Amino acid sequence: MEKRGMLLILSGFSGAGKGTVVKGLMKQGQFALSISATTRSPREGEVDGRDYFFISHQEFETMIREAALYEYATYCGNHYGTPREYVDKQMAQGRDVILEIEMQGALQVKKMFPEAVLIFIVPPTVTVLKERLMHRGTEEMDVIMRRLKRSSEEARSMDQYDYIVVNDQLEPCIEAIVHIVEAERQRGFRSRRLQQKFIDEFALILKGDN
Amino acid sequence: MEKRGMLLILSGFSGAGKGTVVKGLMKQGQFALSISATTRSPREGEVDGRDYFFISHQEFETMIREAALYEYATYCGNHYGTPREYVDKQMAQGRDVILEIEMQGALQVKKMFPEAVLIFIVPPTVTVLKERLMHRGTEEMDVIMRRLKRSSEEARSMDQYDYIVVNDQLEPCIEAIVHIVEAERQRGFRSRRLQQKFIDEFALILKGDN
Repeated sequence: MEKRGMLLILSGFSGAGKGTVVKGLMKQGQFALSISATTRSPREGEVDGRDYFFISHQEFETMIREAALYEYATYCGNHYGTPREYVDKQMAQGRDVILEIEMQGALQVKKMFPEAVLIFIVPPTVTVLKERLMHRGTEEMDVIMRRLKRSSEEARSMDQYDYIVVNDQLEPCIEAIVHIVEAERQRGFRSRRLQQKFIDEFALILKGDN
Repeated sequence: MEKRGMLLILSGFSGAGKGTVVKGLMKQGQFALSISATTRSPREGEVDGRDYFFISHQEFETMIREAALYEYATYCGNHYGTPREYVDKQMAQGRDVILEIEMQGALQVKKMFPEAVLIFIVPPTVTVLKERLMHRGTEEMDVIMRRLKRSSEEARSMDQYDYIVVNDQLEPCIEAIVHIVEAERQRGFRSRRLQQKFIDEFALILKGDN
């Protein structure tokens, strides 16, 4: 039975380990990763077309006008968005697509596509979160505090996500997400084709015996 | 963190193997099984208080009047219902409760308790279903055809269930249900306590550093 893929949206507090989780999920081989477009400059080591599509403000605004984005948001003066084309193509081919985006964009997509699966990744505690941010060693203390403040605001809306997964240890966290995807594949509203198969088979077998 | 248990409702076509699935789930040790009350007579080997609470029509009607039932239905002239008391007590103690009931009752409970998890069990094909019913050897052909007809009607509403699980082989089917329960435990709307914990921890850490 040919099947449409699922749209899996991952968000989480800054420092919750989203990036590592996404890498772990990609190793499973069953997912396609959506690549965001952004107007911000590449950071060291980032590759265009792998980490982001780095485009100009003008190009970004053209995409908005042409409804070529699933969602977009502005963060620290830069635009971030999800180009529709790649996502749609993968799902049509039956592949599940992972979107790692901010809460604002995630809730935007959920409104348009209620069948999207939203997962919010959290650390075991806020203390652990702060430690993880500090151990990165790349940020000043005031940047860390700004991230924590932003996360504290996100905490108030995180119950709008379909699932909240604690990333204490990486492997159990990835396993939990894989199980969520398996469970979601069996959702009643995703099983219309299976349902129709049964309706048809019953019609046939009851007709044959009447 | 003390937690309220989950209400897991299992239904399925007659012959889909619900009984065997429930027995397999009970072996996991994490579930409590709700026992229905019924006005029908015990079949051979059925034990009062284990398979059903066998009660009189009068007793059943008293339970209806006193709102002591979660749901009830009439089938072939007999009443079947789910006594609330046992289910509520188990859930309050943090245990997940399995309810094996008909579609009519299941959708009744879902309306009252949207947080209940409804799982509909189906065989791989209708042909397999018919064979399973015939191999039981306890039913006449016209009874089997009546059951198939009833199932064909249920097929039209089975998408109202939260999940549809195919029972081809027993072990993978049980595993799928266990994974669904694990996934459901991480649902956003079931994580209010976890959310509050984060809100409180953020408040504390941000206050300490301001």
